[in-house]
Amino acid sequence: MDVVVIGLGLIGGSMAKDLRRAGFATGLVGVESDPEHAAEAVRLGIVDRVDSLEEALPGADLVLITTPVDVAVTLLPGVLDRVGAHTTVTDMGSVKRRLTEAVREHSRRRQYVPAHPMAGTENSGPSAALENLFRGKIAILCDQEESGPQHLALVEKMFHALGMHIAYMTSDEQDHSTAFVSHLPHAAAYALANAVQDKEDRNIIFDLASGGFNSTVRLAKSSCAMWHPIFVQNRDYMVESLNVYMKHLEQFRDAIRDGESRQLEALILNANRIRAILNGESPRFLKNEETFVTYFTK
Amino acid sequence: MDVVVIGLGLIGGSMAKDLRRAGFATGLVGVESDPEHAAEAVRLGIVDRVDSLEEALPGADLVLITTPVDVAVTLLPGVLDRVGAHTTVTDMGSVKRRLTEAVREHSRRRQYVPAHPMAGTENSGPSAALENLFRGKIAILCDQEESGPQHLALVEKMFHALGMHIAYMTSDEQDHSTAFVSHLPHAAAYALANAVQDKEDRNIIFDLASGGFNSTVRLAKSSCAMWHPIFVQNRDYMVESLNVYMKHLEQFRDAIRDGESRQLEALILNANRIRAILNGESPRFLKNEETFVTYFTK
Repeated sequence: MDVVVIGLGLIGGSMAKDLRRAGFATGLVGVESDPEHAAEAVRLGIVDRVDSLEEALPGADLVLITTPVDVAVTLLPGVLDRVGAHTTVTDMGSVKRRLTEAVREHSRRRQYVPAHPMAGTENSGPSAALENLFRGKIAILCDQEESGPQHLALVEKMFHALGMHIAYMTSDEQDHSTAFVSHLPHAAAYALANAVQDKEDRNIIFDLASGGFNSTVRLAKSSCAMWHPIFVQNRDYMVESLNVYMKHLEQFRDAIRDGESRQLEALILNANRIRAILNGESPRFLKNEETFVTYFTK
Repeated sequence: MDVVVIGLGLIGGSMAKDLRRAGFATGLVGVESDPEHAAEAVRLGIVDRVDSLEEALPGADLVLITTPVDVAVTLLPGVLDRVGAHTTVTDMGSVKRRLTEAVREHSRRRQYVPAHPMAGTENSGPSAALENLFRGKIAILCDQEESGPQHLALVEKMFHALGMHIAYMTSDEQDHSTAFVSHLPHAAAYALANAVQDKEDRNIIFDLASGGFNSTVRLAKSSCAMWHPIFVQNRDYMVESLNVYMKHLEQFRDAIRDGESRQLEALILNANRIRAILNGESPRFLKNEETFVTYFTK
């Protein structure tokens, strides 16, 4: 199958590597605006060649849009305009309402499958691409009833080729959930990096920082080009998640400040419950199932 | 050299392992109030045997106190009372002002070296003990002028045997710095774990959580027995660091809420500066030096 990857960064590069290795993609053509990234992607064998959008799209069976979400919003309508009637178009962006709204009335809407694989690192560019980045993780498919069944089936098959499980929900539920489990941790890390730099202008402090600090602030290395548009497009849920987070920090600070020893203990023990959840010791929907259907109620 | 380790957890266990392997400790005796931990530590060969405090102390050349900091405050005066005149006593706790104040006027104060190795994991107990936990990291020695030079030299030699670099500062500077680089990240992780559980009561959310969420919330698994007393004893600097952190989160939220695109970009780019600092690309005091003297000015 001939696959076109628009945006040759961490996500596009990693997907291309794995899809080629899985034999899912037999031809891989890249579209990339940054000439250095384009050259690097070809050098690394991530794609066979790099073409312009106009040259690449007609021959594609599947088009992956793996650009920052602001670029995706400007690109997607034109991509749907230009592809053949048989081509499936999917994107991997972390925010979905703005994008799906932009093509809600598009005549080719059913050829588009909005998706979001829950995987990544704090690095960027084709040289950051990793094999097996997605294995065992979850991909979210949004608004499935708006995509044609064959197009949906192809994207599901693609995610299975990457070793991913699939979750189904609306674009709104997607944006709300990822605001808490993905976007908020990034904002928390950015703010922590700024707070520590604000207070400690001597580099020595970072020598003191051990693994605990490093792991909490790791996401603060994440690229502005990718994360700025995510925060902008998911604005309302970002404000909500940050407000909820700050409420819990205030609770924590107040318990310490006011010497509320039992309350502080309760807050720590409640946080400790994450251990069982993250270690998979709590019942999970995904035990031994590759695919499941989840309907979130508001 | 005969070493007594009071508190056979992650830190005491890891130190015992490495000090034995380095040939620094030829005899290792444990003191431990939890019988399961005591049995496990002997079974794992971390210590040769476990004795009561009264039995263990007289024969010791070096006593390591590696208990939670509330236990250390109650233990240290009695330990200084009971040891021989030649014994060095050191502790590894993360908060120093309360503890050093408790023994400020002790007749044996010069036999005590307050220390804090900047290393750890989110796990607890002797089974969590790791080899090489400390290698390449920094140990803080506090109020050095209050310790006898021979006792200071022995503790410095011990840290070098663990492969650590050493930083010198006052107890107050120690508490202030670690409030930002260690205690705040733990509080941030606890609050994040509570915020996400608060909002998402369906376990599915944690299936969605990828590596980014996991690394940011990892510290939320840390034990209450260790961290509750740290927050209590470092109360004033914890409140300060949490206030500074919340100020930066508010800035971040306001930039998103008010559509301040340039400001949001500036905040992310400033946070990105952590990449160079953590990757060691900025000039650091510790290049090629095992020991250095640092005087912090307020």
